[in-house]
Amino acid sequence: MYQTMRKKNKKIKASVLVIGNEILSGRTQDLNVKFISNWLNINCGINVEEVRIIPDSEKTIKKNIIDLSKKFNYVFTTGGIGPTHDDITAHSLSKAFKVKYEYHKEAYEILEKYYGKNNFNNGRKKMAKMPRGSSLIYNPSSTAPGFKIRNVFSLPGVPSILKSMIHNCEKFLIKGSTILSTTTNLQTVESNISKELGKIQVRFKNYIDVGSYPFFRLGIVGVSVVLRSSNKKKLNLCKNEIKKLAKRKKIKIYN
Amino acid sequence: MYQTMRKKNKKIKASVLVIGNEILSGRTQDLNVKFISNWLNINCGINVEEVRIIPDSEKTIKKNIIDLSKKFNYVFTTGGIGPTHDDITAHSLSKAFKVKYEYHKEAYEILEKYYGKNNFNNGRKKMAKMPRGSSLIYNPSSTAPGFKIRNVFSLPGVPSILKSMIHNCEKFLIKGSTILSTTTNLQTVESNISKELGKIQVRFKNYIDVGSYPFFRLGIVGVSVVLRSSNKKKLNLCKNEIKKLAKRKKIKIYN
Repeated sequence: MYQTMRKKNKKIKASVLVIGNEILSGRTQDLNVKFISNWLNINCGINVEEVRIIPDSEKTIKKNIIDLSKKFNYVFTTGGIGPTHDDITAHSLSKAFKVKYEYHKEAYEILEKYYGKNNFNNGRKKMAKMPRGSSLIYNPSSTAPGFKIRNVFSLPGVPSILKSMIHNCEKFLIKGSTILSTTTNLQTVESNISKELGKIQVRFKNYIDVGSYPFFRLGIVGVSVVLRSSNKKKLNLCKNEIKKLAKRKKIKIYN
Repeated sequence: MYQTMRKKNKKIKASVLVIGNEILSGRTQDLNVKFISNWLNINCGINVEEVRIIPDSEKTIKKNIIDLSKKFNYVFTTGGIGPTHDDITAHSLSKAFKVKYEYHKEAYEILEKYYGKNNFNNGRKKMAKMPRGSSLIYNPSSTAPGFKIRNVFSLPGVPSILKSMIHNCEKFLIKGSTILSTTTNLQTVESNISKELGKIQVRFKNYIDVGSYPFFRLGIVGVSVVLRSSNKKKLNLCKNEIKKLAKRKKIKIYN
């Protein structure tokens, strides 16, 4: 088991792999990407740098796992770990890492205890099958555990269950510098500040990510300028520049 | 300009490339993937088979566009076509396809007319810059057009604007067979039907995609069994099998 630690000034990168035909077909709105990204950012100083949404296809899952697990420090998968025929995440991960797909002893015991010996049918038993060498991610809401194999964390697709168990991933993660962010809402349109904002981004390019997002709220047109950085001092300096820009252009700041 | 046509029994595959740090950081909930997938499915018989969410980075956009435009019939990008420094989609697409990044005459005229000559500043002018050879996707809500270059459609990130203009992509698309879907809600848990559902999927594997999605609604636990196919006859046959399964297992069907 890894020690939890925080690497100062170290950028730790993750990706999220959403597995599920229901998301791709437009039937279901994904809610897990936003939640996982926020959780990793705030709790672990880890940046999600790529998300992929793919179908329930063994070949596709395998290919993406091999690719993403090499490219990023961590990969978080969602979906495909239930009891039905379209739940093939655990099996596909075993193939990707060339390890046996087998009953995880502790997971088997947890599920057998939960369902009772007489009701522990094959569908339920399937949820105890994982790649050999997996560590469990305990599930306080619906029991069936997720698992970690190498640098890949497999979580369920149902958002309420995922939310209840994600903190159990924390002990396995090496943490990065906390990412701070601050938003300034300006009562203007983007094209009125684009030139100056570009100059500010260039000036702070080594420290700060300057994002600009138009919005329409209660009949008001505005721009949210979002600054993100692990350097608090530079962040405050940059925020001051945004305030000065607003003053120069006579733009109202509000929340 | 392509003729709109519907290829009988032809599978047309698309991908969506969401471009934006704000989605990856968890600040903003993406709503466009579900909308685009549904629209393509219902209106054009086109399947979205992969989605990627990537940062505002020229290198990353370029790499993904080259990759996805080869792999799929169509690619839809969202985000990064506004007036600010972080809007780099059009420029990155020019690099990907090795064509000039320049003012599109008609887009320039549309925007100049909209803002008026005196207010047509550089930020606004930037929205008329596109890869050479682009066709415009008109924007009835906020004027600045999207564009199509090769098999890639570039749309804005703001969901309300995207929704208002997506129908203007239709004339460029070769359509596939309409995908039909039907849902049966069963008052049971997945593990109670997983074995039989697996058998039904095997029996209809050449025609139907059988999906199984647990839900919790008003205190009731249930499973939505979703069947998707372009073959109506097989779909009805398969739905009958689901109903028979429910009857055998004394499972209540409800909506």
